[in-house]
Amino acid sequence: MISLSRPSALKAGLPPGTPIYTGGQTETEINISIVDYDKEKATFLTSQKIEDCALYKDKSTVTWINIDGLHHVNLVEKLCSCFELHPLTVEDILNTTQRPKVDVFDDYVYLVLRMHHHNEETGEINSEQVSFVLGKTFLLTFQETAGDSFDSVRIRIKQDKGRIRKMGTDYLAYVLMDSIVDNYFTVLEKVGEDMEVLEDELVEKPSTETMQTIHFMKREMILLRKSIWPLRDMVSSLRRDEIPQISPDISMFLNDLYDHTIQVMDTIETYRDMISGMLDIYLSSISNRMNEIMKVLTLFAAIFIPLTFIAGIYGMNFNAEKSPLNMPELGWYYGYPFALGLMAVVGVGMLIYFKTRKWF
Amino acid sequence: MISLSRPSALKAGLPPGTPIYTGGQTETEINISIVDYDKEKATFLTSQKIEDCALYKDKSTVTWINIDGLHHVNLVEKLCSCFELHPLTVEDILNTTQRPKVDVFDDYVYLVLRMHHHNEETGEINSEQVSFVLGKTFLLTFQETAGDSFDSVRIRIKQDKGRIRKMGTDYLAYVLMDSIVDNYFTVLEKVGEDMEVLEDELVEKPSTETMQTIHFMKREMILLRKSIWPLRDMVSSLRRDEIPQISPDISMFLNDLYDHTIQVMDTIETYRDMISGMLDIYLSSISNRMNEIMKVLTLFAAIFIPLTFIAGIYGMNFNAEKSPLNMPELGWYYGYPFALGLMAVVGVGMLIYFKTRKWF
Amino acid sequence: MISLSRPSALKAGLPPGTPIYTGGQTETEINISIVDYDKEKATFLTSQKIEDCALYKDKSTVTWINIDGLHHVNLVEKLCSCFELHPLTVEDILNTTQRPKVDVFDDYVYLVLRMHHHNEETGEINSEQVSFVLGKTFLLTFQETAGDSFDSVRIRIKQDKGRIRKMGTDYLAYVLMDSIVDNYFTVLEKVGEDMEVLEDELVEKPSTETMQTIHFMKREMILLRKSIWPLRDMVSSLRRDEIPQISPDISMFLNDLYDHTIQVMDTIETYRDMISGMLDIYLSSISNRMNEIMKVLTLFAAIFIPLTFIAGIYGMNFNAEKSPLNMPELGWYYGYPFALGLMAVVGVGMLIYFKTRKWF
Amino acid sequence: MISLSRPSALKAGLPPGTPIYTGGQTETEINISIVDYDKEKATFLTSQKIEDCALYKDKSTVTWINIDGLHHVNLVEKLCSCFELHPLTVEDILNTTQRPKVDVFDDYVYLVLRMHHHNEETGEINSEQVSFVLGKTFLLTFQETAGDSFDSVRIRIKQDKGRIRKMGTDYLAYVLMDSIVDNYFTVLEKVGEDMEVLEDELVEKPSTETMQTIHFMKREMILLRKSIWPLRDMVSSLRRDEIPQISPDISMFLNDLYDHTIQVMDTIETYRDMISGMLDIYLSSISNRMNEIMKVLTLFAAIFIPLTFIAGIYGMNFNAEKSPLNMPELGWYYGYPFALGLMAVVGVGMLIYFKTRKWF
Amino acid sequence: MISLSRPSALKAGLPPGTPIYTGGQTETEINISIVDYDKEKATFLTSQKIEDCALYKDKSTVTWINIDGLHHVNLVEKLCSCFELHPLTVEDILNTTQRPKVDVFDDYVYLVLRMHHHNEETGEINSEQVSFVLGKTFLLTFQETAGDSFDSVRIRIKQDKGRIRKMGTDYLAYVLMDSIVDNYFTVLEKVGEDMEVLEDELVEKPSTETMQTIHFMKREMILLRKSIWPLRDMVSSLRRDEIPQISPDISMFLNDLYDHTIQVMDTIETYRDMISGMLDIYLSSISNRMNEIMKVLTLFAAIFIPLTFIAGIYGMNFNAEKSPLNMPELGWYYGYPFALGLMAVVGVGMLIYFKTRKWF
Repeated sequence: MISLSRPSALKAGLPPGTPIYTGGQTETEINISIVDYDKEKATFLTSQKIEDCALYKDKSTVTWINIDGLHHVNLVEKLCSCFELHPLTVEDILNTTQRPKVDVFDDYVYLVLRMHHHNEETGEINSEQVSFVLGKTFLLTFQETAGDSFDSVRIRIKQDKGRIRKMGTDYLAYVLMDSIVDNYFTVLEKVGEDMEVLEDELVEKPSTETMQTIHFMKREMILLRKSIWPLRDMVSSLRRDEIPQISPDISMFLNDLYDHTIQVMDTIETYRDMISGMLDIYLSSISNRMNEIMKVLTLFAAIFIPLTFIAGIYGMNFNAEKSPLNMPELGWYYGYPFALGLMAVVGVGMLIYFKTRKWF
Repeated sequence: MISLSRPSALKAGLPPGTPIYTGGQTETEINISIVDYDKEKATFLTSQKIEDCALYKDKSTVTWINIDGLHHVNLVEKLCSCFELHPLTVEDILNTTQRPKVDVFDDYVYLVLRMHHHNEETGEINSEQVSFVLGKTFLLTFQETAGDSFDSVRIRIKQDKGRIRKMGTDYLAYVLMDSIVDNYFTVLEKVGEDMEVLEDELVEKPSTETMQTIHFMKREMILLRKSIWPLRDMVSSLRRDEIPQISPDISMFLNDLYDHTIQVMDTIETYRDMISGMLDIYLSSISNRMNEIMKVLTLFAAIFIPLTFIAGIYGMNFNAEKSPLNMPELGWYYGYPFALGLMAVVGVGMLIYFKTRKWF
Repeated sequence: MISLSRPSALKAGLPPGTPIYTGGQTETEINISIVDYDKEKATFLTSQKIEDCALYKDKSTVTWINIDGLHHVNLVEKLCSCFELHPLTVEDILNTTQRPKVDVFDDYVYLVLRMHHHNEETGEINSEQVSFVLGKTFLLTFQETAGDSFDSVRIRIKQDKGRIRKMGTDYLAYVLMDSIVDNYFTVLEKVGEDMEVLEDELVEKPSTETMQTIHFMKREMILLRKSIWPLRDMVSSLRRDEIPQISPDISMFLNDLYDHTIQVMDTIETYRDMISGMLDIYLSSISNRMNEIMKVLTLFAAIFIPLTFIAGIYGMNFNAEKSPLNMPELGWYYGYPFALGLMAVVGVGMLIYFKTRKWF
Repeated sequence: MISLSRPSALKAGLPPGTPIYTGGQTETEINISIVDYDKEKATFLTSQKIEDCALYKDKSTVTWINIDGLHHVNLVEKLCSCFELHPLTVEDILNTTQRPKVDVFDDYVYLVLRMHHHNEETGEINSEQVSFVLGKTFLLTFQETAGDSFDSVRIRIKQDKGRIRKMGTDYLAYVLMDSIVDNYFTVLEKVGEDMEVLEDELVEKPSTETMQTIHFMKREMILLRKSIWPLRDMVSSLRRDEIPQISPDISMFLNDLYDHTIQVMDTIETYRDMISGMLDIYLSSISNRMNEIMKVLTLFAAIFIPLTFIAGIYGMNFNAEKSPLNMPELGWYYGYPFALGLMAVVGVGMLIYFKTRKWF
Repeated sequence: MISLSRPSALKAGLPPGTPIYTGGQTETEINISIVDYDKEKATFLTSQKIEDCALYKDKSTVTWINIDGLHHVNLVEKLCSCFELHPLTVEDILNTTQRPKVDVFDDYVYLVLRMHHHNEETGEINSEQVSFVLGKTFLLTFQETAGDSFDSVRIRIKQDKGRIRKMGTDYLAYVLMDSIVDNYFTVLEKVGEDMEVLEDELVEKPSTETMQTIHFMKREMILLRKSIWPLRDMVSSLRRDEIPQISPDISMFLNDLYDHTIQVMDTIETYRDMISGMLDIYLSSISNRMNEIMKVLTLFAAIFIPLTFIAGIYGMNFNAEKSPLNMPELGWYYGYPFALGLMAVVGVGMLIYFKTRKWF
């Protein structure tokens, strides 16, 4: 399940701008990967030391520093102060329950969005906050844990594929955001597959598990929607606001990114509508099934009740010796066959009647 | 059913602008049809070679090149590069899950929308992406499969009917879009007919199939709506934005097109409301029916239960010899008729009582 | 019922601007009524010939030409070409499934709206398209069938009542639109009366017919709303846009008309909410009624079941001769009264218990 | 109940600006109260003659003329023509189904809103239209019936409390509107109290009356909302539009009034949400109660059915004399106690089983 | 529970600007705390006398006066008149049912918002109105009762932590508002925990209490939403409007505050959606459970009914002596075992049949 991003109650009572890490505590090392490139060459470096980053700050080449592991608050703070980030930015980087947004500062743009992964084992969707600090010559990206969808971008830089080596940090940021949004499609496709399985299940054998799965998916959609909805505003404001760090050359790409986020939103809304429809079907098919059973059983009882009544009549002990009117049938030669026949006639008659009224 | 346009997960991890065809793979040939005309004459050509298209690129006459079969990615790319299309446009042409939109480039306008067909055999609505590349002297249209609603336009060009031969590429694009939107009406009329059939069925004999059909139609409406809603924005922005490729002469026609898309949207919304209403009726009529059956059966049982009780009483074995108080009725001369009469009175009395309270 | 304005599928595949009549085919004659007036005098003329209209085209007096019967496509077209209307206008006049809208042309304004009548006999609401072509000195109105709510306007012109004879074509158009909107109130009042009847029915004797009537009214509201909603935008744009054919003198009247359309919308929305509420009540009262019946019957059965059980016990055939323990009650002097008494005690006891728990 | 303001169908077919009174016909006298004041002195006058009003028209002091009883159409018209009101204004004053709105004329502003009273006896909310005609030196107010919430204002004028005597007609109009809006709070507080009573009832003893009360309140909220929603727009346009009759000095007061109307709207929306919630609770608690009863009764039947079956077995008449296998139990010494014991064991066993499964 | 902020009906009929306290009446003392600071030093003072406040009015240092206990209307009024507040402001301070809003006056800005506390003992959320009067050199805060979340701010001022001592009153107001908004997160986190507990309960043992808790939480969300929704507009207008008392230096902080309020809103909306989902699950799981019980019991009855019928047959008293056809089975050697066997076969047969149809 997407963990419901808990409101950052930890921070209540602290001065604004206090850097506190609000994500899950992991014990892993911090992981710094530095990529520095221009048209001519590209350098790749992995490090655990913040000092290595400082070297690249004022270089005119494009420098992309990626940090995995925000729980090393001190190291993150150190890096941030090295790049002269505003305290509110540092707070936002560490507070991993941000809504996607853009903050424009004098020297850099701060972007934050969420990355989703479909966990194959648990069937859950995990989510993680990714922060971008976009300067003229550097791009810092902060992730909660290692493991991302950026490898393809690294390969593209290494192999000088496409236009990436010829463009600036803004294009790099766009490419990374695009890979995150593309990832949403993967997650949604997985959800779509689950929905198809669920639909078949609905028709064939609806169970309480089906209900819970529907509810679970509905909830996932609520949470996905919550984290993707503001993304639209974010990309839209990137396009619209004249941000000095973002050159007009990539506006066409931002338009494309915007279209993709709209498409993600559309798909989520459509899925929500469909899941609601599935809930309706589930409820109606369950109640249909129940009704069927109850109907058959009640019909069943309805047929036997008069038969038992007939048997009850001939089980009465009226004394035939005292009066010839007292249950003469009991003394008839064909009394018993007559009684059985009467029962058969009544039973079959009722069956026919019920059948005529289409009750089963 | 309208196939739920799957999010393009195939593309995740690839650089933006990578041309990948995301539609269904069909084995048919690519199909290029070229129409070139001005006031004086019109040429029609069908070809499988891209090279034929290049000839028409800079001709001052109106050139309409229609391509069926996007799975021939190489050929499509070749054509696009020949007309100097932006890589993002090529990507969008091939990625057949686009939302309707307009992209304005320096040399051309890229338009994408969806075409719907009602499949007579399966009763499903099929949808297909159609891309328009509108330049000053050429119009490229890309379809996923052969078979379209453009034939009437071709005939009009050939026969020089209406104003089409006197106008430019923008009018041609409008006429084609208009024929696509007109087609929506055909599809909706079909849906309307299905709804009327369904309504009669609802009143006469609601069944689980009715429920599934309602659900199916609801889903179709969700998907139709998803693909037509953005069309409104698209046409609206064509009207509003000053696009150099679109001359002010056709603004009146675009207004008309806009009115039509609004009308399509209105009809879809109305249908959605109606289908919701039908679901309510279905559920209530099913539960009414069930209630009727249960009520009759329960009444039935309720009448026989006291009768059986009476029979049970006279089936008791109290020894009349030991005491004159022990079941003297059994020895009465009219004992048995009395018992039967008692049962008749009780039974008829209850029937009258139930009737009085309007229970059946 | 308001016939669901079918999307104009007939038109698919035809060039834009093709005049095709999409309304119901009636066999009646075309009916042209010409009213020509200024401050001094007013002329009334009824004709079947288009030529008569042409005479009035350039007269400086106010000329109102009303045409009933759009199925005479040729005559309508002839009239339109005489007044030099744009092909798209002619198409819109004949296509009787238009949304209310305003189209401003150089020489005239085209207005289209819907007129509703409550059919006393069938209880249905019929709707009809009315088109206005408003020029500087002429006003053309097109109706599908004869019979309208314009007679009071004709009388006012004849009798020179109010300001109508002193004003231009724009005021005349306003007066006619106002009479159409006023008519909505009549229709809504009828619906309001039906709703009150329905509410009483709901409380007194809800039946499946009640359900169907509710559904029917809900549907009527959906369709009324669909045709009146865009009217608001239309009147609003008449007020707002500076249209040369509409003089600023009548802006105050247009404001009034706007207020009326808002009021119509408000009433429709309120009715929709109320009808939804009625549906809830219906469903809950039906299920309440059903529950009542089931409860009483089940209680009934519950009381008799133990009584029958007691009778069953004393109907057992244990041999009292073989053992003094075998059913000694059967040989008691007060055996039978005891058994009957036991049943009475158990029965009454249960009644009291059920009563105590407020089960009936 | 708030009487559903019937659309003014009476007016259909009449020329715009025809003064027709659409409210309920009451037989009371017209009631004219004139208050004339400036900083120095205040005059109070009650009259039945319109002529008295004319005297005050051009006086530079603040003149407030309040008319109760719109059914005296002639008198109202006379007054209006004396103050040179536009025919559309006169029509609006008399047509008592107006939406709250502002109409700005050259010499005056026309304001219309609705006043609500909670009728202590019937528990219903009555509503009445109040019109304001605000000129530079006069304020006309028109009410349908006598009895208003303006007495406190009259007292304030008389006693020269607050700033009212120092301000112009615009402030007076504001004060009167403020007292109307304050009155909404009284009405809503009453509704709030009713809701609390209802909630307790819901938990303790839900009945069909509860359902009807909920429905009734829901309907009241729909109607209240309908009449208060446009009030917001009205006050907002008073604030925003530069109206010559309203001096900028009172803009702060209008802001305050605006805040109050928003608060009224908020409360109504919250009440609506809560009433919906109560409906859910009602339905679920009714069905819970029903289920409880059915469950207990069914359990009850389920226990007795096997017991009766056992009694049925030993009521069979197999002939023990013909075979030692035929019902030897009947001849056992402990046969009867054994049978009773068997029944007890089965009955208690089932009770335990049901208890274990938490079925009651 | 959040007490439903009652509309201020007390005020109806009073002149606007009349100061009336509408909150709960508490008997505690008024509590005035004065904090005065600049870069160099900070003074802390607690007092019960208004006169102490007057001294600080014109000092150029930052003066923060916090008043707990609005029921001392006279003292509050005295303070307000000392700081020359507008009567409408005084009214708003005392009327504790305000919507969050900003009122800009010449000399100060009036801000009002609501503070929420989760009451650990009752599990309810209490809410309280907090007013801010922000002047150039002073900040007045008014709270209904003692006990707030401002202590951390006081400590920060005392210890000169962060930038607070270097900034003006606007920053102080921001810091206080920020601490109020941060507190919402604490409250929401508590609600989130309650929801998780509730969800487990839903799955494990749904009861009527669960239903009531869900309803209670839904209601809390409605009320929280009502008080937080306008906060967004308030913060937004602080950011947007150019307010002289608020320096541009803190716009970045206001952006941050705005983001936080959006996040609070998002979380509330998400919670609302989730609670609705929980209601659906509750209803469906209750009805599932009920259905299960009814099904098993009905199956149970269905099996015994035919068995009892068989016993009834062999309990009939047909006279075997009168005819060899009369119940010969009774005289068979294996008659009784045959009957029992027949019952066993029928019972087991039905069990198998029900099992086959997956009825249990």
